[in-house]
Amino acid sequence: MFISFEGIDGSGKSTQLVLLRDWLEERGHKTITVREPGATALSESIREILLSNRQSITPSAELLLFSAARVQLVEHIIAPALTEGRIVLCDRYVDSTTAYQGFGRQLTMADVAACNRLATQGVMPTVTLFIDVPYDQAQLRMQFHPAAGEPDRMERSGRAFFERVRTGYLDIAAQEPERCHVVDGLRERAEIHHDILNIVVPALVRCGLEKP
Amino acid sequence: MFISFEGIDGSGKSTQLVLLRDWLEERGHKTITVREPGATALSESIREILLSNRQSITPSAELLLFSAARVQLVEHIIAPALTEGRIVLCDRYVDSTTAYQGFGRQLTMADVAACNRLATQGVMPTVTLFIDVPYDQAQLRMQFHPAAGEPDRMERSGRAFFERVRTGYLDIAAQEPERCHVVDGLRERAEIHHDILNIVVPALVRCGLEKP
Repeated sequence: MFISFEGIDGSGKSTQLVLLRDWLEERGHKTITVREPGATALSESIREILLSNRQSITPSAELLLFSAARVQLVEHIIAPALTEGRIVLCDRYVDSTTAYQGFGRQLTMADVAACNRLATQGVMPTVTLFIDVPYDQAQLRMQFHPAAGEPDRMERSGRAFFERVRTGYLDIAAQEPERCHVVDGLRERAEIHHDILNIVVPALVRCGLEKP
Repeated sequence: MFISFEGIDGSGKSTQLVLLRDWLEERGHKTITVREPGATALSESIREILLSNRQSITPSAELLLFSAARVQLVEHIIAPALTEGRIVLCDRYVDSTTAYQGFGRQLTMADVAACNRLATQGVMPTVTLFIDVPYDQAQLRMQFHPAAGEPDRMERSGRAFFERVRTGYLDIAAQEPERCHVVDGLRERAEIHHDILNIVVPALVRCGLEKP
């Protein structure tokens, strides 16, 4: 079983991922948590390039770099973990590319789809949780985050960009309602976690990992 | 006008590129020379990752990384230089991807073609010179090269790999004989340069850059 968390920075997706991981581990499930871009040595080197403010990156190069980081992660970590029967929890995955590079950077969907096919090697999440928070709210949370530093290259993309990204996520959820669930991220942490369990538990049952 | 040089390492393509560049500059042409992967700050960072022996890279990640380096080079350097009317000389370009990742790493040609389309943005060489040298000869030359160091990650790919790469280049030349010319790289430097002029001068005439 493969669960991906999506949303703009400041949406609270990483917090919710940890809450779900702890819940799963307490129930005796073996999990593995990865973040994108990152997790492998190569993908972390690519992450450094992608988030650095030192050099410019064209939208097409950005698409190809995120895809390179992803395929290494899929081949070296996600696919083997799924084969071992672990539950994979991924902080961002292929929908980030559709939302950020497709909708946000306005690259053609044919190019985005070609890279997504190559990058995922056909490995798609069982469940995707899109934690939906408006841009202003996410910005506020980022400012007050204890680990807040200077915004990285992606975070500097501005309001219009992030509003297109959000539209992109909502579009994916409308097109793939079985897989991609919109979670209202404006409520209390515990309430959001409860909503997520209401989506994840039936999926665990369908996968034979929990009793009905 | 855009001229790319192709061949395995040790084929002498970089030497021939410099001889042609000097000839063109002496004739009053404005040229720009770039190498792949590289030339932009981003592409040099990617080059470092690609050639380093420190981390493993899956064939698909390699394809995407070379493509990312290329699209940045096309958008920031090659396309603007062509617009300015310069002659662009490129040490490796899109045929390297077809030969190395397609034939060498045996990725599917559909994936290679999708990345090549995105990476080139439709900017293709006017003339491609494939300097053909058998693997053993190229290896010998590499060993005696004054700048020879430890072989990089690509150079460590072994004989069978490089024989597939050579087959790939010959296949491209057979499929696109108007653009891609095979040059016998086993002769004297000056003879090879002469062969290259016999290919390049008619192309300069066709482009209106030299009188018939």
